[in-house]
Amino acid sequence: MTVKKPALDPHTLEARSSSGYPEPYRARVLPREVHALGDALGLTRIGINMARLLPGKESSMRHWHTCEDEFVYVLEGELVLRTDAGEQLLRAGMCAGFPAGCADGHHFINRSTQPATYLVVSNRDPADTAHYSDPDVDLMWSPAHARFKMTRRDGTPW
Amino acid sequence: MTVKKPALDPHTLEARSSSGYPEPYRARVLPREVHALGDALGLTRIGINMARLLPGKESSMRHWHTCEDEFVYVLEGELVLRTDAGEQLLRAGMCAGFPAGCADGHHFINRSTQPATYLVVSNRDPADTAHYSDPDVDLMWSPAHARFKMTRRDGTPW
Repeated sequence: MTVKKPALDPHTLEARSSSGYPEPYRARVLPREVHALGDALGLTRIGINMARLLPGKESSMRHWHTCEDEFVYVLEGELVLRTDAGEQLLRAGMCAGFPAGCADGHHFINRSTQPATYLVVSNRDPADTAHYSDPDVDLMWSPAHARFKMTRRDGTPW
Repeated sequence: MTVKKPALDPHTLEARSSSGYPEPYRARVLPREVHALGDALGLTRIGINMARLLPGKESSMRHWHTCEDEFVYVLEGELVLRTDAGEQLLRAGMCAGFPAGCADGHHFINRSTQPATYLVVSNRDPADTAHYSDPDVDLMWSPAHARFKMTRRDGTPW
């Protein structure tokens, strides 16, 4: 059975395995399979990605956004969520939400032996900055200052 | 296993069964079970609801939004999507997206014999207006003009 726009079968989309991170962070998230569902459906005000995270990999470095709410729904497998509150195990059917401006960084780690698939949703705001929470992660995402490139925490280029 | 904010198990949230529609449209969507995931997680820039649609019921009247992108992901069961392109059957794992300003109304109908569960996501824009597409549905949602109430298509109160 085939569907057409405005409907979409995510598995008919080619998966991307790319990251804006420099090394050594890049190797902590790649390889991965990301299906850009929102882009494929012509959405511009919200971003919707479906991602498949392999065992041992991280969804991103731990971070928070100044202007974008973020929502994650686990579709398959299980993921460990890290925030200021510590670690929590999320199974399929569970979700998490990170309000814009809340300075409690988050990321997900697949500590299981199976791939985990999740939806990640946000509003899109060109003024958004992402701050990274872990002291060993020297990153900042601030498009207004850095022309859409990851920089070091002090704003200098990688 | 219990999780706490910023994580959430949707089934620990009480379900709502309400609608801003007047009759006869109200009976076409209710009763239903809606879990307001985004509200529970403190999100304000995106709306995230999980809804369980009973056999025979409609997700909404067929409509489109002027300022809000909308995205639907089918979690369980199957739903018929109605748009200008006609009808398509969406099974669990399929999705659909409706860009803001695209005047092709959509809604979903559960024509199966089992409940269907889906996520519905949008950005939130106080300027948004919803226009209803079917000639027999005399509704408009235009908060700027009607103080957050459904009106008739001509803007007069129900």
